[in-house]
Amino acid sequence: MQDIEILGNQQKGLEFIKQTEQKKFIFSLVISYTATSEIPGITMAGEHPDLIKFTGPADAEFIHYGYCRSISVIPMTPDGKPTPALLTKTALEAASIPSVVVNAGSKVSPKLPFIDMNLNYGKNIGKESALSLDDVGKAVEYGRIIGRFLGASTDCVIVGESIPGGTTTALGVLEGFGITGSVSSSMPQNPVDLKIQTVKEALKRLQSNDPFEIISQLGDPMIPTVAGILSTASEISRVLLAGGTQMAAVLAFAKSIGFEGKNTAVGTTSYVSEDKSANLSDIISQIMDVPILVARLKLAESEISGLSSYAKGFVKEGAGAGGSSIGCMLKTGLDAKSLLALTEKEYLKIT
Amino acid sequence: MQDIEILGNQQKGLEFIKQTEQKKFIFSLVISYTATSEIPGITMAGEHPDLIKFTGPADAEFIHYGYCRSISVIPMTPDGKPTPALLTKTALEAASIPSVVVNAGSKVSPKLPFIDMNLNYGKNIGKESALSLDDVGKAVEYGRIIGRFLGASTDCVIVGESIPGGTTTALGVLEGFGITGSVSSSMPQNPVDLKIQTVKEALKRLQSNDPFEIISQLGDPMIPTVAGILSTASEISRVLLAGGTQMAAVLAFAKSIGFEGKNTAVGTTSYVSEDKSANLSDIISQIMDVPILVARLKLAESEISGLSSYAKGFVKEGAGAGGSSIGCMLKTGLDAKSLLALTEKEYLKIT
Repeated sequence: MQDIEILGNQQKGLEFIKQTEQKKFIFSLVISYTATSEIPGITMAGEHPDLIKFTGPADAEFIHYGYCRSISVIPMTPDGKPTPALLTKTALEAASIPSVVVNAGSKVSPKLPFIDMNLNYGKNIGKESALSLDDVGKAVEYGRIIGRFLGASTDCVIVGESIPGGTTTALGVLEGFGITGSVSSSMPQNPVDLKIQTVKEALKRLQSNDPFEIISQLGDPMIPTVAGILSTASEISRVLLAGGTQMAAVLAFAKSIGFEGKNTAVGTTSYVSEDKSANLSDIISQIMDVPILVARLKLAESEISGLSSYAKGFVKEGAGAGGSSIGCMLKTGLDAKSLLALTEKEYLKIT
Repeated sequence: MQDIEILGNQQKGLEFIKQTEQKKFIFSLVISYTATSEIPGITMAGEHPDLIKFTGPADAEFIHYGYCRSISVIPMTPDGKPTPALLTKTALEAASIPSVVVNAGSKVSPKLPFIDMNLNYGKNIGKESALSLDDVGKAVEYGRIIGRFLGASTDCVIVGESIPGGTTTALGVLEGFGITGSVSSSMPQNPVDLKIQTVKEALKRLQSNDPFEIISQLGDPMIPTVAGILSTASEISRVLLAGGTQMAAVLAFAKSIGFEGKNTAVGTTSYVSEDKSANLSDIISQIMDVPILVARLKLAESEISGLSSYAKGFVKEGAGAGGSSIGCMLKTGLDAKSLLALTEKEYLKIT
């Protein structure tokens, strides 16, 4: 596993690797929406404001079909930076990892079969409560049911997310739980000030330290859903939380409802872990002692500029790209170089 | 496996048993709706006409929670005959078999997370086309995606169904494919004439022998969905089709779209296989050479009249009861006597 680096507790990380090597994996993509993403300049996901709501569905469709059904374009910036779902699809396919989509309050439904939770999408936390306390409770409860099913069906559940604007709500939730640090971004010039300003507005509404209240005021539907999945799936299998600081927010909330970190690791890309504007490892160590596995992808070596841009601070992570790459390497023994070759093939297929 | 009887090809049946003993199972309940169920006297599912549409959701909820959320009553006839979901729940719990609900055109959504296919419910085949050709195609395609996921996540996928009025549409589909025989019923006096009359009306609309046209005119959304799941799941794992003649209709359609019977068995209860008004074994042998596994349940020995009524021709099967009982016996080695004791305990819990 030369291309997987461990941050945090080395021993726990090694243990996680040992116990999942050549084992069975399931990938679940939790798609969601927060109207916080509509604040101009806060996210790069979605080329146009009207397209932001299709981010999750488009990622889900791309992973399943290799193209999108809800929108006619490929989820890619005009200059060719592709959605991280491209990495996810490549990794899952190379390792024959089955995948399933969980709709946790997406504004639009994806055009494929998905696990529905019948949740409302998250409101703009800069203006109003993100979701009702009832919806927070439901997200956790339904998440727990899904986690029980997924955990019982595999050796390791990888949980990814796709929610535009989700790093801002993650920042909100971390602040709500008193965790300091900053969050990552899909843009090289992280619009930190705008995020902080938005969270400040949201914090004004916070009436108590109740964890459900924190999610309700500052969060989004993805966070309690993944926390629910995590809490039950980790009882019966390993769980790899695929993402950056958004998964830190999940851990903060999960801890507050009794989760202790059993059988769990965070899986991300080196582009997040090396992000100077966000210190993932520091943030997570403030929450609990779970190891971070980092996929040392070789996108910098690609001659395709859309791919090498990842190493220059664009996109970085999302749609479970880091976690799926780690899952692929663990299951099949492929290295990052081979994965890059497959990713390039996939890229050329869609352009 | 003293309490599992094999009908049809004995060798294939034994092989299926050997290759699934002590293995991993997943149970999926496909819930659906056909307005054919609204024809007075055609089904016993649902105590009142207004409640018929809750049959599938109530079964799904009962299996997950041990009670129903969409209706306030327990799905049981006034004189205490319980839904077969009681047997399903008991068997799945005893064997720790993970379960998932697939919503294939249910008229109401169940109150739990479920895999959604975004299908319309089936219309009354006595009056009009059951579903559009587009919806038939979509059901197969989405079913194939679901089957790929489920098959990759286990050694044996059990597929059950809950669709009130479904034996009539199954009869329609079998007739459409030129298969003779009759179908089972949830009532001891099988309303065969009413079913045949309904199917005759539907057959008048049939313009061709195209399999999609047959489902469109005579079927329901469950049949193409399960056929889709079957076709992909059986490529990578075993599939146990849990049900009676409705699963024969699934096989007839699946065959017409290229399925050859690989890795597949039908699993049912002795109350269906012994039903004089329907000859399951004959019907299936006309379609293809797949073995039938019969759970020889011991409900006749129960002192609870609601349970022993199953042996007197009431209910008989449904919600995957036979298949889950077989799965439970195969996975754990429990016999039918022990399963009965657990079922009685569960019955007393809800009454």
